[in-house]
Amino acid sequence: MEIDPSARLGSNVVVGRNAVIESGVTIGDHVTIGYGTIVRSGTSIGNGVVIGDLTVLGKRPSGNKKKVLKPPERLPPLIIGDGSSIGSNCVIYLGVTLGADVLVGDLAGIRELVEVGESSIVGRNVIVEPHTIIGRFVTIQTSSYITSNMLIEDEAFIGPCCSTSNDKYMGSGSFVHQGPIVGRRAKIGNNATLLPGVRIGEKAVVGAGAVITRDVPPGCTFVGNPGRPIAGRRENG
Amino acid sequence: MEIDPSARLGSNVVVGRNAVIESGVTIGDHVTIGYGTIVRSGTSIGNGVVIGDLTVLGKRPSGNKKKVLKPPERLPPLIIGDGSSIGSNCVIYLGVTLGADVLVGDLAGIRELVEVGESSIVGRNVIVEPHTIIGRFVTIQTSSYITSNMLIEDEAFIGPCCSTSNDKYMGSGSFVHQGPIVGRRAKIGNNATLLPGVRIGEKAVVGAGAVITRDVPPGCTFVGNPGRPIAGRRENG
Amino acid sequence: MEIDPSARLGSNVVVGRNAVIESGVTIGDHVTIGYGTIVRSGTSIGNGVVIGDLTVLGKRPSGNKKKVLKPPERLPPLIIGDGSSIGSNCVIYLGVTLGADVLVGDLAGIRELVEVGESSIVGRNVIVEPHTIIGRFVTIQTSSYITSNMLIEDEAFIGPCCSTSNDKYMGSGSFVHQGPIVGRRAKIGNNATLLPGVRIGEKAVVGAGAVITRDVPPGCTFVGNPGRPIAGRRENG
Repeated sequence: MEIDPSARLGSNVVVGRNAVIESGVTIGDHVTIGYGTIVRSGTSIGNGVVIGDLTVLGKRPSGNKKKVLKPPERLPPLIIGDGSSIGSNCVIYLGVTLGADVLVGDLAGIRELVEVGESSIVGRNVIVEPHTIIGRFVTIQTSSYITSNMLIEDEAFIGPCCSTSNDKYMGSGSFVHQGPIVGRRAKIGNNATLLPGVRIGEKAVVGAGAVITRDVPPGCTFVGNPGRPIAGRRENG
Repeated sequence: MEIDPSARLGSNVVVGRNAVIESGVTIGDHVTIGYGTIVRSGTSIGNGVVIGDLTVLGKRPSGNKKKVLKPPERLPPLIIGDGSSIGSNCVIYLGVTLGADVLVGDLAGIRELVEVGESSIVGRNVIVEPHTIIGRFVTIQTSSYITSNMLIEDEAFIGPCCSTSNDKYMGSGSFVHQGPIVGRRAKIGNNATLLPGVRIGEKAVVGAGAVITRDVPPGCTFVGNPGRPIAGRRENG
Repeated sequence: MEIDPSARLGSNVVVGRNAVIESGVTIGDHVTIGYGTIVRSGTSIGNGVVIGDLTVLGKRPSGNKKKVLKPPERLPPLIIGDGSSIGSNCVIYLGVTLGADVLVGDLAGIRELVEVGESSIVGRNVIVEPHTIIGRFVTIQTSSYITSNMLIEDEAFIGPCCSTSNDKYMGSGSFVHQGPIVGRRAKIGNNATLLPGVRIGEKAVVGAGAVITRDVPPGCTFVGNPGRPIAGRRENG
């Protein structure tokens, strides 16, 4: 392993063979970092954090001539809260803030300027795009896709393989990109499709495989393609 | 590379640069292990196995405060059968048993306590959750998601991007989690959605993009959302 | 890092710690290769290319007893055009040609004998199967699946989580495998499903979550399951 002399490590830190800790990294106490994992400059890792093998932390976004949105020149560091656990073969960018006790599964990717609240789960193979806010005690299950400019409120549950989008015109121009808003304690079934900007109300339910083209009111359940209501407001969610 | 002195290697074993072989690992004859691959303690690798680069074998599950199901304290080792091939950038856990001649694609993840029968294919970017049994000569194509407590019988074919689930109440409580059961020689089309506990009968067919909310009888074909039958029992599958 | 003496590196090449550059690799000027990245024999990397960490370039396909299509004995090298950018934790095979200014996201996989035209984007977690041709200025968004023997024409837009297939009989025999053909400037919504061999006409639109079972004429928009037209030819796409 290679640890830059400017990195500050707490007590009882275990760093796996072939890991790289770049300049200005801060690591708390009782932290484990796996084999071959890369911790890029400036990353801040809290106490009691466990990082898997072969993971990249604090990656800088790269541009592309075609992309409309350039990443900002300066981004804050990646911050990982106390007690969080990150899987193996993940890629997490600069400018991400993970609260305490967050779990990120293997093979997940989280882009810049994303916030994940305490005790939330970002499942394995999940990708989260930039400028998205995920609340506290949220579950995002395996292989779901969370687009940019999306809001997921506290205690929402997103099943496996869900898909979201934020661009009504599919790359036609520079329109505002607005992802879905998933309300508090809402539940989204597996492989559901959410169109740009739809609002899933508090305690609403989206059935597995549903395609949601318009807002789902609080407490309602929508199923089918296109998604339609099957039940009224539930009494006590 | 770093090979623990307690590991037992057969003849003609090639271990790539920066690979790590931990304590108590057993490796057969004529085995190739790629660059930077991590083989965790106790893993057993059969004869003629090929492992790609940057893969993690024998990972221990990590807990999380929110998770209802804690991983068991002691898990059996990861066992990889003779002639199997594992891709690059995979993550495979403790307590997995892969039969002979199994193929696991790149970027795949297999959780603890999963069995995969001989000559089956777990495609690239596929994730398999814990406590699932996959039979012999099964094909699971790219990017499909296999939930926990699922049974896939011999010679079943699961197309790409299929989604399965096991929790009818989406995280609401401690109900029994039962994944789908896919019968012998059944075929599931790409991007199909299977709800918790549905049974796909022997030689049944699920169309691409179908959402299966109830059992599909043997030999029947279901399509649409929700999935409905389009044809009776086929004569000779 | 380990650089084979037969590799030819241009000026201003930065190679990260623990990277491996095998024999016969050619690297242009002003190239950055991340930590732990593997560049397999014969790979050709153009000027100004940026490669992320823990990525595998130039992988050789492996066979399997069950697979009908064996990979060819000899494959041309992986060629990466000037100005392209490859993410972290990717796996790209021998026989792939990436044009100039191509962007490949993190955790993506591209199989052998695929061509990607200049300035196209292969998003993160996208998998592209063998023998597929992707034109110029194409966008393939995050987590989409591009099957083999598929053609995507110039300036097409494929949203996130789209699924394609090429085998009408789902592994039943040795029939011809033909993937979809996506025409110039066509747009595919997120989580859409394309069946084997369907043709999406020039400037046609497929709605999010649609299941496309037959050809979509040029300029038409199809939505639903099964996909049906909702609008005639658009005046000016």
